[in-house]
Amino acid sequence: MPSFMKPQLPKGMRDFLPGDMLRRQYVTDTVTDVFETFGFEPIQTPVLEMYDTLMGKYGEDAENLIFTAQHAEGKSELALRYDLTVPLTRFFSMHENELPLPFKRYHIAPVWRAERPQRGRYREFYQCDADIIGIPGMEADAEVLSVTATAIERLGFHDFVIKINNRKLLTGIGQYAGLSGDALNSLYRTIDKTDKIGLDGVRAEFSKNGLPDSVIDKMIPLLASAQNIKGLAAGARMIGSLRETLEAFPTAMEGLNELETLAQNLEASGVPGDNVGLDFTMVRGLSYYTATIFETGLVSDDPEESVGSVNGGGRYDDLIGLFRKESLPTVGTSLGIERLMYLMERRDMYPATLSKTVVQVLVTVFSAETRRASMMLAATLRRAGIRTELYMQDKQVGKQVGYADKKGIPLVTIMGPDEVSADQVKLKNLLDGSEITVPTDETVLKIKALLEQRP
Amino acid sequence: MPSFMKPQLPKGMRDFLPGDMLRRQYVTDTVTDVFETFGFEPIQTPVLEMYDTLMGKYGEDAENLIFTAQHAEGKSELALRYDLTVPLTRFFSMHENELPLPFKRYHIAPVWRAERPQRGRYREFYQCDADIIGIPGMEADAEVLSVTATAIERLGFHDFVIKINNRKLLTGIGQYAGLSGDALNSLYRTIDKTDKIGLDGVRAEFSKNGLPDSVIDKMIPLLASAQNIKGLAAGARMIGSLRETLEAFPTAMEGLNELETLAQNLEASGVPGDNVGLDFTMVRGLSYYTATIFETGLVSDDPEESVGSVNGGGRYDDLIGLFRKESLPTVGTSLGIERLMYLMERRDMYPATLSKTVVQVLVTVFSAETRRASMMLAATLRRAGIRTELYMQDKQVGKQVGYADKKGIPLVTIMGPDEVSADQVKLKNLLDGSEITVPTDETVLKIKALLEQRP
Repeated sequence: MPSFMKPQLPKGMRDFLPGDMLRRQYVTDTVTDVFETFGFEPIQTPVLEMYDTLMGKYGEDAENLIFTAQHAEGKSELALRYDLTVPLTRFFSMHENELPLPFKRYHIAPVWRAERPQRGRYREFYQCDADIIGIPGMEADAEVLSVTATAIERLGFHDFVIKINNRKLLTGIGQYAGLSGDALNSLYRTIDKTDKIGLDGVRAEFSKNGLPDSVIDKMIPLLASAQNIKGLAAGARMIGSLRETLEAFPTAMEGLNELETLAQNLEASGVPGDNVGLDFTMVRGLSYYTATIFETGLVSDDPEESVGSVNGGGRYDDLIGLFRKESLPTVGTSLGIERLMYLMERRDMYPATLSKTVVQVLVTVFSAETRRASMMLAATLRRAGIRTELYMQDKQVGKQVGYADKKGIPLVTIMGPDEVSADQVKLKNLLDGSEITVPTDETVLKIKALLEQRP
Repeated sequence: MPSFMKPQLPKGMRDFLPGDMLRRQYVTDTVTDVFETFGFEPIQTPVLEMYDTLMGKYGEDAENLIFTAQHAEGKSELALRYDLTVPLTRFFSMHENELPLPFKRYHIAPVWRAERPQRGRYREFYQCDADIIGIPGMEADAEVLSVTATAIERLGFHDFVIKINNRKLLTGIGQYAGLSGDALNSLYRTIDKTDKIGLDGVRAEFSKNGLPDSVIDKMIPLLASAQNIKGLAAGARMIGSLRETLEAFPTAMEGLNELETLAQNLEASGVPGDNVGLDFTMVRGLSYYTATIFETGLVSDDPEESVGSVNGGGRYDDLIGLFRKESLPTVGTSLGIERLMYLMERRDMYPATLSKTVVQVLVTVFSAETRRASMMLAATLRRAGIRTELYMQDKQVGKQVGYADKKGIPLVTIMGPDEVSADQVKLKNLLDGSEITVPTDETVLKIKALLEQRP
């Protein structure tokens, strides 16, 4: 038996090595930049919330996946956050006196869910959310959709479609077909399966659930009328054509009006019409949505790329009301950056200039006698902001250069006894194999010039 | 009874509002930049570790503070990480085939400890670590101390002293005084109290613990000889003067040699001599240190600033051996950024240009008729990378300008019917009250010029 312990990671959780981190930072920096360009402000909440803060918000299936936490002498049960939305509502309710209204925030942070791990699904993964609290009108929904499209585009994706729907319209369609009360609520769960079982399957399930044929026959054609309509213009035409049919149903008309205003706002915001679609069969699982809902997918025939939607969101006007006297209208978007990163990796979409190391220069050490000169050179480069590694082992310079090459460090300095006595530095460019010798006090300028030339 | 739930944070944990976040990001960005300038690479490990990974590493007192975690169907006990050092050793042992050696990494992330909350002490707080794995020589210790001094200085602190000691020297002093085995190990705990009880107190406690007077009389003068010696030069002289006394004790001599080499390397690395000190009474609590140890404090008479050390670290050559066949020499530093931020706040050290909002421009909406023009303007500014908020409520323009002012947004655009028909934008600078009107297609350039002028 070995006297050491086998190192082990918890199931479904990951380490990130430096190369992984540089790619992840590229993605989160890009998204952060887009979020801030749209005026969303950063906030942060603790990883642990009170258990009671999370419970009763997501539905039973989801809540079974929550990790709980406690310590030896703790009296209250804690839990690791399941998403960033419920923590936002808790946060806002506690700090609203210090926050502007409307409050626009973004939050990029890990969440925990004890799901069965599978491709692209982890038990600790990042969410990437932007939400607006306090605006009832579709201006806010347009902002949230516009920031979503811009972020996905800025990462390099063009073949995406944001499918939009409105829960009020779905409810209205049910009313038009003759349903009310609980029967309306149970609609969503069945319609949500359209992607998997098709509208024929939905029809069969409605029947099995005891809906009368007269109701089903009125509903299915309406749902089918806007299944996967691509483009803002086509969507707007479809909405117009439904007005007459649904005229007598105020909730449906509210939904249609909201969809129409939203489309106008998206157009004015410059969201490319081709990246938007209308889909009355898209429902979104979570129970807290109240009006606009949306979901983004990539157009791809590659089965290896079928990762599900890369974004989702919508309006949840009642959620904050669980923590304060009166609720406030809220709308938000969540980017699935884990899936986006999986696709970027697969499609080789990361910029060619993205390095696998932060280091720009390796300062080699020729011998014990020249160590002091190399240390002083490293200190000079670092003071100039150049990311510098000082070699720390006793090895031949050739081996040190090989180390730099293997690690992907582009430049290497060499100061042997000759260079030290001549107050010079030999500078090797590992990208093209060139080598020059420069006076020590010109090294910083020369290195900065070489780094700027990089492809 | 209200029908909503009082929002509540777990004890000792915090939310960060946008203004807090911008200050925290300034600090972590500064430290990240310094770490990378020294060639440390970013990594990340999960928040949760296997319970057994953490246990038996920190000592019983510390391990009582660990938060455990689990989920409904989980078979293995998990725990929230207590620091970033044990996760690093677990990480390295699992991935060493994919990592360069030496491996230099930094990690800035929260850790959890169920301590009694008090000023500047939280149950979720950030650690900020840089470590070097694989180098036995003092070159690595010098790198770690040099990056520490540079980071603290770059944040704006100048009145700090990094106190250095070496556990081998402490052991050697004990041997010189006549101790061996367990008696040596128990020395540390008493000497560690010097700060609180003084050397007289240490003498008394030694006596109480049953150490013979002859031993105590030999030890105390040596400890006193380097209590709070300030400056590299003075430290080097003191080390030199001890060589004769300790000549016959190899462990002590090893410690002295290491301290001497370290001092030479620090000098060559350009670490200001005044920011370094020697202190034989400084021990550091954690049991895993094996040679160099250090601790940084600020020189201050203000009782409100007595927050303890703002940095600590040292060499722990045996820790990785708990997860792999043979251990590897390792040395690291940890910046107490929570305490540093507390002091920066108190001393008003954040740059005056640090804003409390990310937003650079508020695009106001004059009326429903001009909304479309304002939305298009916002889209144009955002495409140009200007951080833009589009006002989303129906309020008088005066109120919208007031909102910008209160929020700290420096620039405001106004497009009333006159401006829209003349294809112009009115641009208000809230910093100096000036106002100009520019053609719409020159707005981006004009705004960028105004933002660059900011103090």
